[in-house]
Amino acid sequence: MKGIWLENQQLQLRDDIYTPKPASGEALVRVLRAGICNTDLEIIRGYYPYKGILGHEFVGVIEQGPEHLLNQRVVGEINAACGNCRFCLSHQPTHCENRSVLGIVNRNGAFAEYLTLPVQNLHVVPDSVSTDEATFTEPVAAALEIQQQIQICPVDKVLVVGDGKLGQLVAQTLALTDCELLVIGRHREKLANLEERGIKTGFADAVTAGAFDISVECTGNPEGFAIARRALRPRGILVLKSTYAGTLSLDVSSLVVDEITLIGSRCGPLAPALELISQQKINVKPLIHAHYPLQAGIVAFEHAKQKGVLKVLLDIEQG
Amino acid sequence: MKGIWLENQQLQLRDDIYTPKPASGEALVRVLRAGICNTDLEIIRGYYPYKGILGHEFVGVIEQGPEHLLNQRVVGEINAACGNCRFCLSHQPTHCENRSVLGIVNRNGAFAEYLTLPVQNLHVVPDSVSTDEATFTEPVAAALEIQQQIQICPVDKVLVVGDGKLGQLVAQTLALTDCELLVIGRHREKLANLEERGIKTGFADAVTAGAFDISVECTGNPEGFAIARRALRPRGILVLKSTYAGTLSLDVSSLVVDEITLIGSRCGPLAPALELISQQKINVKPLIHAHYPLQAGIVAFEHAKQKGVLKVLLDIEQG
Repeated sequence: MKGIWLENQQLQLRDDIYTPKPASGEALVRVLRAGICNTDLEIIRGYYPYKGILGHEFVGVIEQGPEHLLNQRVVGEINAACGNCRFCLSHQPTHCENRSVLGIVNRNGAFAEYLTLPVQNLHVVPDSVSTDEATFTEPVAAALEIQQQIQICPVDKVLVVGDGKLGQLVAQTLALTDCELLVIGRHREKLANLEERGIKTGFADAVTAGAFDISVECTGNPEGFAIARRALRPRGILVLKSTYAGTLSLDVSSLVVDEITLIGSRCGPLAPALELISQQKINVKPLIHAHYPLQAGIVAFEHAKQKGVLKVLLDIEQG
Repeated sequence: MKGIWLENQQLQLRDDIYTPKPASGEALVRVLRAGICNTDLEIIRGYYPYKGILGHEFVGVIEQGPEHLLNQRVVGEINAACGNCRFCLSHQPTHCENRSVLGIVNRNGAFAEYLTLPVQNLHVVPDSVSTDEATFTEPVAAALEIQQQIQICPVDKVLVVGDGKLGQLVAQTLALTDCELLVIGRHREKLANLEERGIKTGFADAVTAGAFDISVECTGNPEGFAIARRALRPRGILVLKSTYAGTLSLDVSSLVVDEITLIGSRCGPLAPALELISQQKINVKPLIHAHYPLQAGIVAFEHAKQKGVLKVLLDIEQG
C-alpha cells in the first residue's frame, strides 16, 4: 500500500508498504482522511525515536472486523492497551505499560491507505458529522483531558497561552465550562476565530501577572511557559498541554513559595469529543488550512511546518 | 537588644538592635529558643534578598500582649497577614499579598532577644512539651502541609527523598497516614532515626523506577529531584518541599506524556503540628545535634552549614 514513511528523521512517500493484517481483536481500517499534528512535526525533529508510518488523527472505514461495524466510518483511540497491566486494570489504558500508540510508538499510523487498531478503540462517526470534522476528534479529546484532571468552575479565571491548533481547541472546550477565559497568541487572524465564538483574546501584554487561577500552556516553547507561570496566582494550576523539544529551565523555589501545581496532560476521551463536534459545540472548520492528496504528502508536511499554519489534512482516499 | 543581623549576606552578632515595639494587635515575645533552618542558610547564600534578623523557628514567652497570654510560652505562625486581601479573605493567609514573614520578608526574626508577631499567629505551648521540642512546631507544620494539599491513603506508595531535617519530619508525618513509605538518603545514621520508628529506609539504589504513587523532594538539589521524578508511576504526584538555589532543568515532555503532577509545598498548620508533638507522635529529639548560646550564634551557623548536621538550636535566653 501507499504511505508516508519516517526513518532517520526523513519522510518518504512509499508504495511498497505491506498492508497490515489485523491481529485478533483488531480491525482493518481503510483511511479516508488524516490530520498533521504538532506531535508529528516534533517526532520528525527527533523528539521521540520512531520509525514507520506517522499519523494518529484520522477517519476511516472498517474493512475487516466485527460484522456490525463493517463499512462504518470510525475514529480511534490511539493507545492500544494490553488490558492486563496495573494501569489497564485501574482503568487508565492511555498509560498502559505495554501500549503501542498509533503513529507514535510501535504501531504504524494513519498516513497510509490502511491501519489497524483494536476494535474497542474505534468509535462510529454519526452521519451528521463530516469526515473533515471527525478528523479532529482525537485533538478535541486531548483538549478535554484537562477537564478530566482538574475541576474548572465558572468563577475560575483561566488563561490559554497559544493560538495554534491545540490552543484553539483547548480554548473552545474550556469555554464550555463558562469559566472566565482569556486566550493569548501572536496572530490576530487566529485569535479572530475565537473572538467570533465570544471568547476573549489578546496578545501577551493582555495578561496581568498573578491574576489567573489556571493557565494552560499550548505553545511548547519556554516563552509560552513563562507567560503561563507569571499569570498564576499563588496556589494556581499550570496545565502543560504541549510537549517540548529539549528541557525547560524552571525556578523551583518560586513554585514552592507560591505552592503552584504543574500538571502534564495528554490523551483524552474520544466519545465526548465526538459528541461535542456532532452537537456543533466545537467548530473545527476554521482550523482547516489545507487539504492535500496522500501523493503530495511530503509537500503537505512542508506546508504544516510553516509558521501560522493551522491544520493540514491529507485526503488518503480521494472522494 | 542582642541579635544576629544579616546584611549583604554577612552575619554579625550585634547588641545595639532596637527592641521592637509591638504594633496594634501584635505581641512582644521574649525568645527562649530558636532553630536554624535550611531556609536561613539559603537566605545567607543569597537565595532571597533579606536584611535584618534571621530566624523563624522559635519558642518564646509573651511579655506584652493580651492579659490572658502574658508569661505564656508560645510558638508562632511566621506569616503575618493583612486580613484584607483576596487571599486573606479566602482563608489563605500564608499567601497574603501584603504579608511579612518572620525572619524572611520585611519582619525581623527570632535570632534575637525579642520579636513581635500578631497575637492571632501565636499558639500556647502545653506544659507537657519541652521548649526544645516546641521549637520544631513550625517545620513539623510545614511537613503537614503536604497532607493539606494532597490526599494520602494507606494503599499509596510514597517515597521521601532526603534524610535531612526536613526529610526526617516529612517522613514522620507521612508515616502517620499508614501509607507504604520509603525514605532514602545518604547517611546511615540519619536513616537509623527513622528505622527506629519502624519507617523503611534505604539508599538511592533502593528506589524502583515507576513504582511510587507520590514522591516528596526534600533535598533541594537536582539529583534529589531526578530520583523523585524517576520513582513515579504515570499520573504520580511529585511534591516539591525544598527551595532550590538557582533553576532546575526539566524534561517537560516526559511530564506531559506521563501526566505527572508537580506541586510546590510551603508553610503548614501549626496547631496540629503542636498537637502531634505533644502526643509524642513525632519524635524530634534525635534531630537536635547541638545547642549554642546566642553569644556564639555565628559559630552555631558554621556548625549548621556542615554536611550531615541536623538541627542546631540557639538558646537565646539561658535557662
